[in-house]
Amino acid sequence: MDSLKVIKIGGQVLDDEEMLRDVLRRFASLPGKKILVHGGGKHASRMAERLGLKIRLVNGRRVTDAATLQVAQMVYAGLLNTNIVAQLQALQVNALGLTGADGNAIRSVKRPVGEVDFGFVGDVVAVNVAFLQTLLAQNWVPVFCALTHDGHGQILNTNADTIVSELAVALSQRFETELVFTFEKNGVLSDVSDEHSRIPKLTFEQYETLKSNGAFTDGMLPKLENAFRSLRKGVRRVRILHALDLGSLNAEPHPGTILSME
Amino acid sequence: MDSLKVIKIGGQVLDDEEMLRDVLRRFASLPGKKILVHGGGKHASRMAERLGLKIRLVNGRRVTDAATLQVAQMVYAGLLNTNIVAQLQALQVNALGLTGADGNAIRSVKRPVGEVDFGFVGDVVAVNVAFLQTLLAQNWVPVFCALTHDGHGQILNTNADTIVSELAVALSQRFETELVFTFEKNGVLSDVSDEHSRIPKLTFEQYETLKSNGAFTDGMLPKLENAFRSLRKGVRRVRILHALDLGSLNAEPHPGTILSME
Repeated sequence: MDSLKVIKIGGQVLDDEEMLRDVLRRFASLPGKKILVHGGGKHASRMAERLGLKIRLVNGRRVTDAATLQVAQMVYAGLLNTNIVAQLQALQVNALGLTGADGNAIRSVKRPVGEVDFGFVGDVVAVNVAFLQTLLAQNWVPVFCALTHDGHGQILNTNADTIVSELAVALSQRFETELVFTFEKNGVLSDVSDEHSRIPKLTFEQYETLKSNGAFTDGMLPKLENAFRSLRKGVRRVRILHALDLGSLNAEPHPGTILSME
Repeated sequence: MDSLKVIKIGGQVLDDEEMLRDVLRRFASLPGKKILVHGGGKHASRMAERLGLKIRLVNGRRVTDAATLQVAQMVYAGLLNTNIVAQLQALQVNALGLTGADGNAIRSVKRPVGEVDFGFVGDVVAVNVAFLQTLLAQNWVPVFCALTHDGHGQILNTNADTIVSELAVALSQRFETELVFTFEKNGVLSDVSDEHSRIPKLTFEQYETLKSNGAFTDGMLPKLENAFRSLRKGVRRVRILHALDLGSLNAEPHPGTILSME
């Protein structure tokens, strides 16, 4: 099987033009087949504010009403995705910007209304592996933003961490897939206030222990849950590292944190 | 050679959700290989207004400063393109939304500053025929918005009529290409105030005569210039018709206007 890297960039990297350029340069230098997934950083919130929209949170989670969805489409697909693709092209990477609607790449269903109506939020139901295989066979580099579609004409907002995990799991049927979450810390830290407390290797057992000790932040927990679920579902390796360490994935000692089931 | 239709939609069609849906249904029903190109309608102007941006016109032409380019990206690539792709997918068309940066599909150069600096406006220098051939060979349907890139990381604004013509000309090397401009009139009219004055067939000679009589509007003239240039450069057939006539391209008598060199 060919190997494949599915890489997420998000957070501060997207809010800092210089850093984004550096990170894309590192991404471009990675050999082999690869997919990039990006979040929206603070751009969407800023644009919503400029348009005078109020962000509604329920239990700390954003509600995507029609106006907020429009902002997500404009910022994720219109601004960020397009700029990232243009920059990658300048770096000789044959990038192709995608939402889940393009090529029916990622289909989702609108999250059912329970106690909370999250609005236009989609839970992934299908990844079009054949479509992505065709792109990768051409050595094109898919660049996904965090939007999916329901197959009935509606774009939906889907968390970028979820998208990257779903892609990695689905593609692990056909590729030896490595899932890489990048962010602005040196990896998973046992003490979030101490950048030197990086955990180089984290097994599921260690994770459970640290979790019960409350070691992980609210931002890190869902990432780790996603990561271990992906490992259980066939992804070969999951790594969490600083975005600027993308260029030294194969260095020894390795940067960031490598997660494994045992 | 396979035949190919390269179809432009724009203007009022994009400003009317119902009509857009109808037009996309007709586009979906067209057999064979096809490419869709869309403009921005009045969406971009409205969004610029909401963001408090002033539109600068020089000699009646829009100047694209950095903020205006952002709006164009957000509206063309983020909102319109993404929604059109999602709607086509619902109609079982395997659409793929593109800017000129995706797959290095359309490269342009920033228009040189002469008496006027038009800002981030790109003049097309290269269409990636091999890339588009690969997409069409898969029976995917490329959907272009009016954005190109300069190959150095910069997105540029390019007129949608220009894009559709450049695509048709470049692809006519490999396909028997028909270029179709749609809009909200019944075709080229000899009297713009009379919808019944449609010219079913317009030769270059007739065009020159009518032009010197001042028969054409400022909006129609560049379309016709583009159209006849495309015919000279290898496009098999150019048609100008009402967007709602897209479904009856093969009807007899034919809708709209068919342009020919002689």
